[in-house]
Amino acid sequence: MPEGATPPTQRGDFETSLSGDDGLDLRVWLRLLTCSTLIERRVRQRLREQFDITLPRFDLLAQLDRAPDGLTMGALSRRLMVSNGNVTGLIDRLVAEDLVERQPAPGDRRAQLVRLTQDGKRAFDRMIPAHATWIRELFASLDRKAQITLFESLAELKTSLANAERG
Amino acid sequence: MPEGATPPTQRGDFETSLSGDDGLDLRVWLRLLTCSTLIERRVRQRLREQFDITLPRFDLLAQLDRAPDGLTMGALSRRLMVSNGNVTGLIDRLVAEDLVERQPAPGDRRAQLVRLTQDGKRAFDRMIPAHATWIRELFASLDRKAQITLFESLAELKTSLANAERG
Repeated sequence: MPEGATPPTQRGDFETSLSGDDGLDLRVWLRLLTCSTLIERRVRQRLREQFDITLPRFDLLAQLDRAPDGLTMGALSRRLMVSNGNVTGLIDRLVAEDLVERQPAPGDRRAQLVRLTQDGKRAFDRMIPAHATWIRELFASLDRKAQITLFESLAELKTSLANAERG
Repeated sequence: MPEGATPPTQRGDFETSLSGDDGLDLRVWLRLLTCSTLIERRVRQRLREQFDITLPRFDLLAQLDRAPDGLTMGALSRRLMVSNGNVTGLIDRLVAEDLVERQPAPGDRRAQLVRLTQDGKRAFDRMIPAHATWIRELFASLDRKAQITLFESLAELKTSLANAERG
């Protein structure tokens, strides 16, 4: 950004749609959405520039990296919080590029497990430190205490969302 | 959700991709992303079921509703945090449905202002109370003090993101 330009958060974001009558919960939500959109946009841009990869592909590799024994399609789509159909298309393309493989699940030959290939693991291992650096830069002005407060507040929100889903 | 089923936050979400080595900032980010995805998914679903409208259209109507004198395309895309190109396509379709209109900006005939038509205003006015109710339900287990804490924590994060963008 050129020196002296207005930072993005002052140029307008989701919070600009608030009116004086709007409740605190709506204000919290639009601020949360603004933060999440700003971070996601930055990560998406860096992934494209430095690794020529999309964010959904990166998220999928990240989930498989944490599950060396593989994951079923159902488990993957739950962890990625998207539909099974969306995950299937992603997997097809990653299989075609030899980054991911499908295998029959032990004990249930009708089920399939998806996991990283050696190439996939190698590719993802190069992205991990870069991704960690981008996030560290974005959170750099929050000290550890502020990060803990936010982390705990978000835990309460997550519980509230789960309660609403159940209720 | 069927009684006794595991709530979505325990079935796995973005936080399941964390490893023991990951820093606090990454943990905060994945929890933030999980919350924001859960809320967005719920709002998207309700908008489709009850008003047959997509989330990007709703967000656009919400911004125009707060700007009765109209907004330029540039201002709109900044507030919606998306590219100008994306906004143009959305506007075209809303103009075709008589929910939104384009007019030359006073004093600068080359610039155009976008604003709600009467039909657009009427349609959006029906969505406001429903949307407020969905958000209230999602935040229902957070008391006012917890909401204020989260609101203030997110303000600090927003400042940190703006600093990173500048730096």
